[in-house]
Amino acid sequence: MEFNKQTVRTIIFEADTPAGKAFDVWLIVLILLSVAAVMLDTVDEIHAKYGTWLYAAEWIFTIIFTIEYGLRLWCIQNPGLYARSFYGIVDLLGILPTYLSLWLAGSQYFLVVRVIRVLRVFRVLRMVRYVGEAELISQALLASRRKITVFVCSVLALVVIFGSLMYLVEGGNNPGFASIPDSIYWAVTTMTTVGYGDITPHSPIGRGLATIIMIMGYGIIAVPTGIVTLELNEANRRRANTRTCPACSAEGHSREAAFCWRCGQHLFREVAPAQAPTDDKTG
Amino acid sequence: MEFNKQTVRTIIFEADTPAGKAFDVWLIVLILLSVAAVMLDTVDEIHAKYGTWLYAAEWIFTIIFTIEYGLRLWCIQNPGLYARSFYGIVDLLGILPTYLSLWLAGSQYFLVVRVIRVLRVFRVLRMVRYVGEAELISQALLASRRKITVFVCSVLALVVIFGSLMYLVEGGNNPGFASIPDSIYWAVTTMTTVGYGDITPHSPIGRGLATIIMIMGYGIIAVPTGIVTLELNEANRRRANTRTCPACSAEGHSREAAFCWRCGQHLFREVAPAQAPTDDKTG
Amino acid sequence: MEFNKQTVRTIIFEADTPAGKAFDVWLIVLILLSVAAVMLDTVDEIHAKYGTWLYAAEWIFTIIFTIEYGLRLWCIQNPGLYARSFYGIVDLLGILPTYLSLWLAGSQYFLVVRVIRVLRVFRVLRMVRYVGEAELISQALLASRRKITVFVCSVLALVVIFGSLMYLVEGGNNPGFASIPDSIYWAVTTMTTVGYGDITPHSPIGRGLATIIMIMGYGIIAVPTGIVTLELNEANRRRANTRTCPACSAEGHSREAAFCWRCGQHLFREVAPAQAPTDDKTG
Amino acid sequence: MEFNKQTVRTIIFEADTPAGKAFDVWLIVLILLSVAAVMLDTVDEIHAKYGTWLYAAEWIFTIIFTIEYGLRLWCIQNPGLYARSFYGIVDLLGILPTYLSLWLAGSQYFLVVRVIRVLRVFRVLRMVRYVGEAELISQALLASRRKITVFVCSVLALVVIFGSLMYLVEGGNNPGFASIPDSIYWAVTTMTTVGYGDITPHSPIGRGLATIIMIMGYGIIAVPTGIVTLELNEANRRRANTRTCPACSAEGHSREAAFCWRCGQHLFREVAPAQAPTDDKTG
Repeated sequence: MEFNKQTVRTIIFEADTPAGKAFDVWLIVLILLSVAAVMLDTVDEIHAKYGTWLYAAEWIFTIIFTIEYGLRLWCIQNPGLYARSFYGIVDLLGILPTYLSLWLAGSQYFLVVRVIRVLRVFRVLRMVRYVGEAELISQALLASRRKITVFVCSVLALVVIFGSLMYLVEGGNNPGFASIPDSIYWAVTTMTTVGYGDITPHSPIGRGLATIIMIMGYGIIAVPTGIVTLELNEANRRRANTRTCPACSAEGHSREAAFCWRCGQHLFREVAPAQAPTDDKTG
Repeated sequence: MEFNKQTVRTIIFEADTPAGKAFDVWLIVLILLSVAAVMLDTVDEIHAKYGTWLYAAEWIFTIIFTIEYGLRLWCIQNPGLYARSFYGIVDLLGILPTYLSLWLAGSQYFLVVRVIRVLRVFRVLRMVRYVGEAELISQALLASRRKITVFVCSVLALVVIFGSLMYLVEGGNNPGFASIPDSIYWAVTTMTTVGYGDITPHSPIGRGLATIIMIMGYGIIAVPTGIVTLELNEANRRRANTRTCPACSAEGHSREAAFCWRCGQHLFREVAPAQAPTDDKTG
Repeated sequence: MEFNKQTVRTIIFEADTPAGKAFDVWLIVLILLSVAAVMLDTVDEIHAKYGTWLYAAEWIFTIIFTIEYGLRLWCIQNPGLYARSFYGIVDLLGILPTYLSLWLAGSQYFLVVRVIRVLRVFRVLRMVRYVGEAELISQALLASRRKITVFVCSVLALVVIFGSLMYLVEGGNNPGFASIPDSIYWAVTTMTTVGYGDITPHSPIGRGLATIIMIMGYGIIAVPTGIVTLELNEANRRRANTRTCPACSAEGHSREAAFCWRCGQHLFREVAPAQAPTDDKTG
Repeated sequence: MEFNKQTVRTIIFEADTPAGKAFDVWLIVLILLSVAAVMLDTVDEIHAKYGTWLYAAEWIFTIIFTIEYGLRLWCIQNPGLYARSFYGIVDLLGILPTYLSLWLAGSQYFLVVRVIRVLRVFRVLRMVRYVGEAELISQALLASRRKITVFVCSVLALVVIFGSLMYLVEGGNNPGFASIPDSIYWAVTTMTTVGYGDITPHSPIGRGLATIIMIMGYGIIAVPTGIVTLELNEANRRRANTRTCPACSAEGHSREAAFCWRCGQHLFREVAPAQAPTDDKTG
């Protein structure tokens, strides 16, 4: 297999050739390994023991990803477009910090940005057969975008109001509720049923109020669930109905539909008109 | 654009003109800023540093909102109706506290003042005006009103009973369960899966009971979710299916459907049969 | 209105007369008050201050409920049946403890007395009589009974296995995981997303395992939700289709059904045969 | 009833004979008892008091299960197949550890022994045999396999990224966020709404970030719920709708439907048209 743009592009950007599959698998492995390396490097014991090894590994990963990034730029028709695309930026962010760390030595916090590489896994997932599933979910989430926004806004409003009330009730004698922002933080942990317990009400009134917030949060979790379920159903139904009208090629017929909703054309050709309940139309 | 009631009303109460849009956007920004100011003012460090600035800002916000409130009263046909309406009261509550704080400025009234100043947070409620998306959700919640009530009552009954049992089991040797109200507070935190951990069972029996409550709470979260999903579905279907076929009275036509999916009957009477591809049926 | 069995029965057992309504409302108020009294009596400060008042109130409530219980027994046709019914037993349990507390007043029986006094909280169960809305929910829960059981069993199995694994991983150096029962208790708090935090993993492996359990618990909450939603839908659809076949009076026709699923009878009489797609049958 | 392979197999492997039922019930009881014994044995007090008894019980259980395992191997046609099957391996794992603990009785192997003894808890897996109800649920979970995978991957990615961010924000001055793995562990506890509270943010920025993660986790719980609900619905519909009308190929016939709900076509070919009320159509 000679080495030319076309071949490289097929390998890198497509997943349906054996070579492309192998490339994807290796890429995922490398990405996960590099992310793991970044993580482990932040654990003091590991850094003390294997710091140098991890540093070396990091450079190897960076160089490999740099070559890959270069190849992507080289083999694609429109490099500029790719460079400005979401994945192009993610790819760049995955390698940049290591190089920058040479200039800005010392700030190991800065290197954490390399964790962003984890996002690259999704590109591979997108190419592999999970695309259909993911798009259904994202379709549903997109469709419920505005409803979810409304829901989140309502939650935030509730949280602000209850947080302020708790500040009034507990603020005086409970260091955890020293300010409204703290009280709101507590209200969020409570309403989302996370419940750290780092801040808890002590007074009876405070506990009563907390009870209300808890039950409220326990109940309204149902709202986003209902919304997403609804939208998933919609997205699924839309997809399920791939039948197109033979006359006007309209889509979106429900499963039971016998006639096109747009032109009234009978949808079942194979059924003999004699049996068909509406032979007077097709005959 | 000359300044008269009509223009002002269009700007303030309608959002479809550019001016109206701009007004709404600015109002939202101002409301959020003023709420943020109230919150930050309760953080001691910030109050110490920027207290005076925040106080000034507060007065500016109050004056602006007062003018806006005045304009609303002035430009609307029926001021009394607006003043007694939900939004009218919320708008008034947004400005009143600041003025009241002048009267009650005495240190002896400190708590009152604090309450009043915090109450300005309720300005956030004014945002409600802008969540127009909510009708489907609120429809569903309204429809499931009684079911949700039943659910909440059942949860409360369960919580009372389990709380009392835990008081019997743990009460003796666990300060957290010193009284039934405390035990109920614990039962709520457990059943709603919040789980602060400020009160936890120590005895084996108590932990066994807690296990039952947890799994119960983990399971019955499904009930409100199911209810809301159901009602959302109903609300959605109702909205989609306001039309029935005049011939076979079939339902479930999509919004843009022109023909019955079951009998092919043309759905729009006003359309002349001649234009319709299925005139042979309606003619 | 003369005082006879018939009248009393109407008042006590039916709610559609004004008197019956009033009776129910008063009963609910009394039940809630008495439950509140029992609760508050367990708070030391309140018991110290108002103990005697609460004791008096308790006796008043008990006597009222005793009279009511007597009237129920008196006015009903079959007292034995009522006495053995769920509500009869609950009603009895609501008054018995107070009387028993007289016999067992000895200090040595203190715990028993405490138990008995707390048991009066179960009067809250008498409210069940008034949640008539619940039939749809209970139908759904009943229908999903077995599925829920399977789910709970699976959760318990998972919890046992993961608890044991955590005991192996953390048991050695973490007092919280000193035994498998404790570890299982922890696993339950984790999988149900309650997360008290009274027991938490310290070792990296333990935290890794915990992460798996958390994500698992976060995911499988979807199962009961899905089940209940499904059953609620079924129950709702079944209820929605009240149409019966005019020929064989079969029920359970789907909304779109044009013919009886049992005898094939055309379901729409009002539609003129000419418009009907299957006039060859009805003609 | 003479004792031969056939009889034994019926008793052991089938549950529809009284003997088979009894056998299953007894087996379930024994499995649960043995699991309980293993658990209780890890509680120090109980081990100190009843250690020897539990040890004896353990051997009794093991011998019974060994005999049962032997009988299964003896009475089945293809022992090798059973031995390699899931149930066969689980059954073997249920008895093996006790025997192994004899070999590795040396104190130096204590941990190994402990592991082995705890592994007997996995006998609980043998219960799987008895959850036959699960096929609908498992169908749905299987169908949503890929969607769930996508979801879990997204959650993991979010958790990695937010964990790293928290490490940047809190890492410096909060021992709980000393490394990225710890921060990710925290992010998981937060996003899954478990919220132990063993690690909590202290800085305002950290709390702000935590708020975002909490609301995000509170919201996206809706996704798996929606997916499973969807798939359960599909699985349910698929089960109900295995039949299509031969005339108009309509779907959605209830199980006991004899006629198409749309065209009234008789659904059972084997039924002679003469008997069918709609012979005029099929004839």
